[in-house]
Formats: sequence, C-alpha cells, structure tokens
Amino acid sequence: MALIVQKFGGTSVGTTERIRAVAERIVATHIAGNECVAVVSAMGDVTDELLLLARAVNPAPPEREMDMLLATGEQVTIALLAMAIHALGHEAISFTGAQVGIVTDAGHTKARIQEVRADCVKDALAEGRIVIVAGFQGSTPEGQITTLGRGGSDTTAVAIAAGISADVCEIYTDVDGVFTADPRVVADARKIDVISYEEMLEMAATGARVLQLRSVEFGRNHGVVMHVRSSFNDLPGTIVKEADASMEQAIISGVTHDTSEAKITIRDVPDQPGVASQVFSALAEANCNVDMIVQNVSEEGSTDISFTIPKEDLVRAKRTVETMVAHLGARTWSVDESIAKVSLVGAGMKTHPGVAAQMFTALAEAGVNIDMISTSSIRVSCVISGEQAEQAVRALHETFGLAEHEVYVETAPTTGGGN
Amino acid sequence: MALIVQKFGGTSVGTTERIRAVAERIVATHIAGNECVAVVSAMGDVTDELLLLARAVNPAPPEREMDMLLATGEQVTIALLAMAIHALGHEAISFTGAQVGIVTDAGHTKARIQEVRADCVKDALAEGRIVIVAGFQGSTPEGQITTLGRGGSDTTAVAIAAGISADVCEIYTDVDGVFTADPRVVADARKIDVISYEEMLEMAATGARVLQLRSVEFGRNHGVVMHVRSSFNDLPGTIVKEADASMEQAIISGVTHDTSEAKITIRDVPDQPGVASQVFSALAEANCNVDMIVQNVSEEGSTDISFTIPKEDLVRAKRTVETMVAHLGARTWSVDESIAKVSLVGAGMKTHPGVAAQMFTALAEAGVNIDMISTSSIRVSCVISGEQAEQAVRALHETFGLAEHEVYVETAPTTGGGN
Repeated sequence: MALIVQKFGGTSVGTTERIRAVAERIVATHIAGNECVAVVSAMGDVTDELLLLARAVNPAPPEREMDMLLATGEQVTIALLAMAIHALGHEAISFTGAQVGIVTDAGHTKARIQEVRADCVKDALAEGRIVIVAGFQGSTPEGQITTLGRGGSDTTAVAIAAGISADVCEIYTDVDGVFTADPRVVADARKIDVISYEEMLEMAATGARVLQLRSVEFGRNHGVVMHVRSSFNDLPGTIVKEADASMEQAIISGVTHDTSEAKITIRDVPDQPGVASQVFSALAEANCNVDMIVQNVSEEGSTDISFTIPKEDLVRAKRTVETMVAHLGARTWSVDESIAKVSLVGAGMKTHPGVAAQMFTALAEAGVNIDMISTSSIRVSCVISGEQAEQAVRALHETFGLAEHEVYVETAPTTGGGN
Repeated sequence: MALIVQKFGGTSVGTTERIRAVAERIVATHIAGNECVAVVSAMGDVTDELLLLARAVNPAPPEREMDMLLATGEQVTIALLAMAIHALGHEAISFTGAQVGIVTDAGHTKARIQEVRADCVKDALAEGRIVIVAGFQGSTPEGQITTLGRGGSDTTAVAIAAGISADVCEIYTDVDGVFTADPRVVADARKIDVISYEEMLEMAATGARVLQLRSVEFGRNHGVVMHVRSSFNDLPGTIVKEADASMEQAIISGVTHDTSEAKITIRDVPDQPGVASQVFSALAEANCNVDMIVQNVSEEGSTDISFTIPKEDLVRAKRTVETMVAHLGARTWSVDESIAKVSLVGAGMKTHPGVAAQMFTALAEAGVNIDMISTSSIRVSCVISGEQAEQAVRALHETFGLAEHEVYVETAPTTGGGN
C-alpha cells in the first residue's frame, strides 16, 4: 500500500464529465489498496471568467479581494469531485487550502507557502477516506485567503505530499511525461523515464512547460518524488527525484526552447565600475525578471550590455532603460522581440567539457547564428533568432542522439567532445 | 453617526452593473457619516447553476460537500462588491461566513447559528473600512463550512447586526416594504411604516414573502431593529421592531394569503385518545411540516381530521397517511391541492374580540366558503378555495379599511366589533 498524492489540472476537471472520469481514476487507485489525496485546480476557464467579472467592477482590483474571488474556483471543483467519488460508493472529503493548513505569507496573488499543517488530511486518511484538496490556495496565519500564483496547484500537491510524507506526488497532465524536446517540434522526441531535480529545474527554467519551476524546487527541497504522467492513459510517465547512483545518467537529458523573452541591448555604456549594478538594480526595482546578461568586450572605454527579459515585463523594462540610458550617458539602446533561447540540459555535462563546443558547431552547421551564450554546470543556453528556433532544436536533438536511449555516461566514448 | 447593516439579495447583486450600483449605495451611506456592514447573497442564478453542476456528478450529493459548493456563490459576490467599493475610492474588506465568526451547528444545508464572533467586523470598522460579509453561510466550531438554508442571508444580516449591536439592519428588496396586502392582488394596498416583531412573524408565517420568518425570529430574540426597503429608490420602507407605546397600534396590520399548501382529510377516524398523536407523530417523523389542524365534531364514535402542509411535503405526507389510515381503521382520506389560506394579522385584535366574526361575515358576503379556521391572539386564518384567494383578500382589505391610515386603536370607535 502506498500513500499517493494525485494532482489534476484545470483541463482534467474542465467539465462534470471529466470530473467523473477523474473520480474513477482516483477510486481505482484507492481500490488498488492505496491511500489517496487528490489536489485539483479550478474547472477549465473558470479562473478567466472570474477575472472578467473582477475587471468589470474594478480595472485594478485589490489583491486581497482578488484572492477571495479566485479561491472559489478550486472550491467548486473539490466539492464536485468529492460528490462524484461518493456517487461511486466511496467516502471522500474535501478541504479548502485554508482548511487543510496551507499556511502562506500575506503576498496576495503570489503567496509563498510557509508551513503545511496536514493533520486533517492524515485524520481523514486514517478513517479510510479519499481526501480532496483545493490547489493554488492557502491562508495566512491570521486566516486571510491567499493564492499561490502561477503553478500554484502543482506546488500545493508537492507541499501536501511533503506534509504527509507521501510515497509519490503524481502530476497528471495532457502529455505522457517530460520529453527530450518539445514533441510538437521534434517528431522523434523521446519520453524521459527518470530525471533528477537539478536537470528538471534547468529544463523547466528554459522552456519545458510540463512542470512549473516552483513545484520542482519545492519537491527538491523536501525530497518529494514526483511522477509526471498523462491523465488520458495509464502509461508510466517521468519520475523526478534526487540523482542517485542507480539512475541512468545521460550526458544530455533534453533540448528546450523558449520564445517568450525579448532582448534589450544598451550600446556604448561608459566602461566603469558600478554601471551594471545601476542598470540591473533599476530593473529589479521595476520588477523586471532579467534572465541572461551579456556584457561585450570593452572598446575605447565603452561597452555594450545585452540582457533578456520576459516579454510581459517589456513595457516596464523599456521605461527603466530609457531613464538609465540618459542617466549613464550611453549612446543608444534597442529591443529585439523576435529571439529564441535554445538550451541543452544534462547532468553529464559536468564531466564532459566538450558539450558546449559541440552545440555551437551543430548550430553553425545548421546555419544558426548565436547571439548570446550563458551556461550553468549542467546547461548551455544560446539566444538565437526566433525564426530559427525549431530548426535549432531539431539539429541539437539529432546531433546529441536524444531519440535513442544509448547516450549515457556509462556508454563512453561519447558522441560529444571534438574540441 | 449610526452603525448600519445592509443586506442585499441575489437580484440586487445579479450582474456586475448591479453590484456597482449597490457599491454606490453603500458608499453614500458611508459618506453620510455611518459605519457600514453589507451582507450579500450569491449573484442571481449562481446558486441554481451550482445545483445543476452538483446533480450532474451525483443525483444525491452529500450535504457537507453541497455546502462546500454553495458557499462559493456568496464568496464571489463579497469579493466583487469589495472591489467595486475600492473602485469608488473607499476601503472595503470582505469576509466569508467562516472568517466573520458565524458559528453554526453541523446541520449541513440548514445549519442553525449558535454564536456570532464579530470581532473582525468591529476591528475593520474601527479602521474606517466598509465591511462586506457573505450571507447564507457559516462554519462549525471545527471549521466545516455550513449553509443556513432558506432565508439564510437575511438571518446572517440580523445575526451580524446583533453581534455588533448595530442601530438598524436594513433589508434591501425589490418592493418598497411590507404592505397591508400583496400589491399585485390589491391595487390600493398600503405600505406599513412600522410593525411589531409579533405581527411581522404572523405575516411572514402566513404568506408575506418579503421577510423570512427565521430572520424576524432572530431579530425579535436579539432586539434588532429591521428596516425593509427598496433597493431601487431611497424611500423609507417598513420598520420592524419591538411593540412600544409610541407605535401606532393598528387593529389590523394586514391581510396575507398563501397558496403553497395542500389539505389532507382523513375521514371516520375512531374517536379515541391518542389518535391525533399517532397521526401527527408519524408526519413529524416523515419530516412533514404540518401547519393548520382541524378535528371536526365527533359523530357516532368517529371523527374527521384535516390538516394543511406545504405542497413540497405532499409526497411524503401521502405515503405516511396511507399507512396510518390502514393502521387506524379510518374509512378513507383525500387530498385537496387547490386551497388558499387567507389571514388577518393585527396586534389590536387582542383587545377587539369582534374581528374574527367580522372576517367571516366579509368572506360570506363575498361568496367565499370557509373550509378551516385557525387563530392566534393576533391572527385569524381561514382555508378557502384556491380560486377565491384574491377575491377574499380584496374583500378583507376593503372591509377593514386597510388602504387608509386611520384604523388605529387610538382612533376608537373601531370599524370592527359588531358581533
């Protein structure tokens, strides 16, 4: 018997028919002898509909009241799912985030979980019930309702799993797992069976949409084994867990790409200490989430600074940069909104220094010009033209043989190396 | 400066446009120098839509989960109303029933209020905010979400008013107040300016739909002054409060009618002690809400028993009566679904014994046959044919001169008396 947390997103519970299907899956897990906790999102478009209502009464609604409003979305789903499970003849009990003890800070609409008091979950499981928990929401120690922001339901699921020491946290989604590249771009992309938290974090941070960065971080910090799998079939998906000796250690786990960022370049900035600090402090104050930063080689006492930011932060960033350019006495600045970031992620890189060079060669051979480069110990990212993103991903997937299972550290010599 | 609780029903907050109008009314009350608490229902048809969702996943949903589901309806409204008030430049804060401290028993879908811990309301008012509270809901001492059943939002408003010792609890509705008769039936029905709790209770119990019986009971028990008024204009409505010397004491306050009941008659029941007890104990066990009971004069050792019940209880009542008839050896039984109950209500009746006789005379002159009679110290009710209901109401309204203001105890001799 295992203790299993199952998370179902908004699409999986988008209609009463789908809620009944989810109920059947949970009951099947329960009948198989497991203790089950389900964490669910709001039904389909409900959150968007609530946002429309809010905008109709206030173009800039206060965040506390926004949380009060949005939290109703998941509350509807948990009640309906519990009812659907009762209809199948099994005992279920639903809890809101506040009731289940998801204690957060007061950062309304993007609250951080501080503590999980899951006693009521344990009690209900001990009574033989299936427990249904509202994702995406919690409450402050004072009882104010909060929501967790983007990826909140995944985070709730992992937090509950940590709080009750579950054996696994299953994240149900509309794909079969985490792939070596986006299957819509690369036809022979391969489902990854097992991946480490570190690699999953890099993949999530660089464009793999299947898991939210935040929930993987929470999973890593609390040692929660995550299982990303399809809600449309019973196939095993991708296990995300601590890297250990038994895990097949691929040099490269996957290729990701991300076209949601824009690049800003400031030209001929005086090459003095403190300039970068001023620019990026100002951007941080404007709440702009800077990703890659490159400062080019200085010529004649001035330098160019380029950085990428999410397109949704672009308006704020432009305003800030305009001010900074005048302040610093830079020559000019420009924005490029049609960029893509392609990344190679793999724990084996640490011991295989040729990967980056091989990646640049592959891109060159595919006729793709590299604009910016950034690396971590298990990742290499290149900013390229947005139009060439898919072409680049396919070239890299092919070059590193990701469609095959054989590219492991154990099977050296590697296909990498070269220079 | 007054401390005012204002309650707005589902129609008043049925659209975002109406929510903005309600926000303006509350803000106007606030700007006039009052402390304001608003209690609101779910928007328009939201509750019905939630019920449809529930039925789609479970034809007999568990009541605890039903409350979890339904409570979201008011939660949406309070958030939107608080946002709308913010949009007008005023501070508002919303609370769910659980948050505001409406503590109930565990009778899910029809919970009873046990206690009101309104500290957070007082605190928010002290900070100069407008407070918005979700009607219809509360929570058990253990934190389970409950709903209060029919008339729940009115009851929440009166309970909050009692909890914070408000000067008045304003109940906004789609009519101008409590009338001497249903204005749709009697063209010259007159709005009542002031009425005692006792009279209002009798009127609510006999067909005046404008206030729920339960909220008036709560108001009486806690001495909350209620003001029933229109949400479409600023006219004063009807004040409901303790009868006192200063109150104009009408002999008759109003005529009510109710066509929602059916009559069951059991014929030739053995006239023995304990028979009525058996019949009505069985009906109580079947959860049938018996209203009037008449047992006719016994003839030759047997008797007839008639009683009225809400039509919604009829299926259960028929099943029970069928069993009892066989058990008691009664001759036969019948059901009449086309009855009406017309009632005269007035505190002045206590000191004017001729009212009942005058009522029967008026009905006779209008050609209306009386089927059953029941009285209290301030009410006389007659069951008549359903088809003659409106005719009877008009005749009584005319006979007792209810369209005029002059029919007070102070202005004796009365028009009543006679026999």
